[in-house]
Amino acid sequence: MEKIILDGNVVAQEIKEGLKSRIDLLKNKGITPCLATILVGDNPASETYVRMKGNACKRLGIESIRVHLPEETGTLELIETIKELNNDPSVHGILLQHPVPSQIDERAAFEAIDIRKDVDGVTSTGFGQTALGFGQYPSCTPAAIMKMLDYYQIPIEGKHAVVVGRSPILGKPVSALLLNANATVTTCHSKTANLPEILKHADIVVAAVGLPKFIQGSWLKQGSVVLDAGYNKGNVGDIDYDTCYEAASAITPVPGGIGPITIATLLKHTVDSAEKL
Amino acid sequence: MEKIILDGNVVAQEIKEGLKSRIDLLKNKGITPCLATILVGDNPASETYVRMKGNACKRLGIESIRVHLPEETGTLELIETIKELNNDPSVHGILLQHPVPSQIDERAAFEAIDIRKDVDGVTSTGFGQTALGFGQYPSCTPAAIMKMLDYYQIPIEGKHAVVVGRSPILGKPVSALLLNANATVTTCHSKTANLPEILKHADIVVAAVGLPKFIQGSWLKQGSVVLDAGYNKGNVGDIDYDTCYEAASAITPVPGGIGPITIATLLKHTVDSAEKL
Repeated sequence: MEKIILDGNVVAQEIKEGLKSRIDLLKNKGITPCLATILVGDNPASETYVRMKGNACKRLGIESIRVHLPEETGTLELIETIKELNNDPSVHGILLQHPVPSQIDERAAFEAIDIRKDVDGVTSTGFGQTALGFGQYPSCTPAAIMKMLDYYQIPIEGKHAVVVGRSPILGKPVSALLLNANATVTTCHSKTANLPEILKHADIVVAAVGLPKFIQGSWLKQGSVVLDAGYNKGNVGDIDYDTCYEAASAITPVPGGIGPITIATLLKHTVDSAEKL
Repeated sequence: MEKIILDGNVVAQEIKEGLKSRIDLLKNKGITPCLATILVGDNPASETYVRMKGNACKRLGIESIRVHLPEETGTLELIETIKELNNDPSVHGILLQHPVPSQIDERAAFEAIDIRKDVDGVTSTGFGQTALGFGQYPSCTPAAIMKMLDYYQIPIEGKHAVVVGRSPILGKPVSALLLNANATVTTCHSKTANLPEILKHADIVVAAVGLPKFIQGSWLKQGSVVLDAGYNKGNVGDIDYDTCYEAASAITPVPGGIGPITIATLLKHTVDSAEKL
């Protein structure tokens, strides 16, 4: 069986190449696309993510504003900061790095983001628009998964896609996007009774569960397409790569799979927004 | 095997009984809950639905305003009407009867409804809130399906629910509600390759496809719970009742199943809104 390693770096590179002329054009008009990231507290993983996003912006000539709030920030203070960024015409995208500290009402904070700057599709309106098929900015990781499938011309229509995970910015929106692309979609989660049995019927598997090496190759149908959106300590994803590799016809590595496309998508959404605003 | 006929009239009656004292309380404060229905054109089925909803309001002491626009109404005119109702403090719920004539951008019209008066969950924000688990007013038919399961104490958590249909106010939101109730949810549709095979694994089946007598009993797992949200010409639902009855452990009749609960839910949402506004 032919086996394809789905290379996220190649796809990300293509997206970024496509942005360069658009960024130049904007700059010629005196507009520099700008992404504001908000980090609350000192979670080292979150700091790394925010730094990676900032660096990716810089390399492409996108400005990035980094707002770092103290660990003890309250919901109202955070919302105040978000509102300032909403009202700042130089800012085109707002990304609140999550998780936020537990005293904050994360949902209330997400909802405060202006839909026009919600480049990671975290608001309920952004999610709803995505699910109903006219979202401008689907969450970046789900959009990256769709882009990967598209780039490698993997058929979706009529296929059975099984998404493992149901978070608001990963499992739920990727289920919605796959459904809109005419897959039959099953969404699984911690309460799913018989995950291995369900995965045996999956043509496309999306792992978005946040548990290292959770999904086993023995659970998969031979020839399935396996997309790993997880990223856990020790540089491993949510699938047990070695055993899943054996079963899959196409598979994403971690790192170098969905991750790079996610960041490229965030940049693309920021440029899209700069063009619109 | 014990077989339960899921009686929507009983459930609807319970909902309506629960509303009476709340409506009295509102009226003592000088507030009469009010639902505005908008009908565009002369579709006889739509006229019947609107009349049924109006009568249901009247029987319970809820006011109903019926706006009837001509067949040739344009999108902007319709949105203008919706905005007037948004701004009318005596109106607590707005229901745009669909389908609307083809020259109208139905989505744009739905989106014009104020989220606080979106008692049928048709806006993208309303859908997003429902899917993310904090929606005030899920679409009435999906909410009715959940109410039916709740009333008959049918377990959902860990069960495999298969929804056949993916419309914005039925298949998609009921999939979301079942997922939030911890079912493993598969959403099927016209592009699904092997529907009978998928239904063979379903503990709970929701038929929301709009095709008379489409789902056959031979496709079902023995003992499954079958909820028919369809209503087609000739007073038949989306399932082939006689054969499905044989396979099911619990089943909704049509009429007298989900339909009456849908209307009762619409009334309940209108009263909820009158209390909030």
